Amino acid sequence: MRKITMLTDLLEANDVIAMENRKVFDRNRILALNLMSSPGAGKTTVLEKTIDKLGKRFHFAVIEGDVATSNDAKRLAKYKIPVVQITTETFGGACHLDANMVQRAMQKIDLSKVDILFIENIGNLICPAEFDLGEHKKVIVLSLTEGEDKPSKYPVVFRNSDLLLVNKMDLWSYLGINLNLLLRNTKKINPKLPIIKLSAKTEEGFKSWLEWLRKQYQKKSGS
Amino acid sequence: MRKITMLTDLLEANDVIAMENRKVFDRNRILALNLMSSPGAGKTTVLEKTIDKLGKRFHFAVIEGDVATSNDAKRLAKYKIPVVQITTETFGGACHLDANMVQRAMQKIDLSKVDILFIENIGNLICPAEFDLGEHKKVIVLSLTEGEDKPSKYPVVFRNSDLLLVNKMDLWSYLGINLNLLLRNTKKINPKLPIIKLSAKTEEGFKSWLEWLRKQYQKKSGS
Repeated sequence: MRKITMLTDLLEANDVIAMENRKVFDRNRILALNLMSSPGAGKTTVLEKTIDKLGKRFHFAVIEGDVATSNDAKRLAKYKIPVVQITTETFGGACHLDANMVQRAMQKIDLSKVDILFIENIGNLICPAEFDLGEHKKVIVLSLTEGEDKPSKYPVVFRNSDLLLVNKMDLWSYLGINLNLLLRNTKKINPKLPIIKLSAKTEEGFKSWLEWLRKQYQKKSGS
Repeated sequence: MRKITMLTDLLEANDVIAMENRKVFDRNRILALNLMSSPGAGKTTVLEKTIDKLGKRFHFAVIEGDVATSNDAKRLAKYKIPVVQITTETFGGACHLDANMVQRAMQKIDLSKVDILFIENIGNLICPAEFDLGEHKKVIVLSLTEGEDKPSKYPVVFRNSDLLLVNKMDLWSYLGINLNLLLRNTKKINPKLPIIKLSAKTEEGFKSWLEWLRKQYQKKSGS
């Protein structure tokens, strides 16, 4: 009981800071996206390809979340965009980002020069879904290798998200995964969740994702 | 600060119950293993194949941890062994099992008839590593698809474990994964961690895992 009260307090405090973050994003006409997935589903590769393809059209920035290492921030350094690494080892090894961590990281970025901010969450399908960071949209990256039952087993993240990217489609023919079953399981949890199948490796399906991104930015900026 | 004190209290309370669980296992000459991995790394498939191959030699039981669904328990039902499902939705959606949940589940199993108990943890590479359940050994299942850097990014689970199973080796030729780099990264975090490469699909490498399991059981039971 004590544990549950504490969690409620923490979530409420988080929501207040998340609201502040969102106001800052809005004032700067930034589209902020929270990317969530299991470990190794390909979030960083999706980001690399996205920045590679749209880097001339938009000014990107990335806040990278990890328990340990700044490997992903280093991978993105080549694009010469602002990248801030949060490692939660210094926050007791937290298994998710929270609005306060994001607020601190935001202060290291000149937000007046950013169009789209990606917040790459910790690799975890559970707790990240419960913490509003101030983003406008939540995007799940699911690796096809994880199997058809993940929406049913991790319902909160699928229920709370605005887009599902099914990544590693290039492996489909080797996996024996029933894609229709995956889509049906997703619909049961969140009938309105748009789904884009892609491969960050072969770039199959990438056009639809970039189109979705452009549309979200237009809605946000009114441009 | 308040959060950290609370966490310490919770972990200490957990350890007391874990110790009780371990005593019960020892009294019943049970080898208890805690299986941890990311979502969809193949823990349940490893269990299916293991029970299939050693079901005549040992009496198995399984405690299944999930946030939602009893899909995995249903998959194991065909082996006619005791399987108890814990769904943490009823514990505030906890992202890991704790010793108390396991203690309650144990009470539903006739432990006098069990040789090896598998506790299949929630799919999450972070928090499960911090909670002792009373098991004798911790086993990580890593899907090869997750990439070479997971030991560096999720150091606690690799540091605290007794065996690493690198699963889905059948996909190796399609993935372009540098296996030596994965092994080097693992050694940096935990130089003594034994590593077995296998495929629960093709059964490649399975012999070594079954051999490891038999040895652990012999050590435990003295038989």
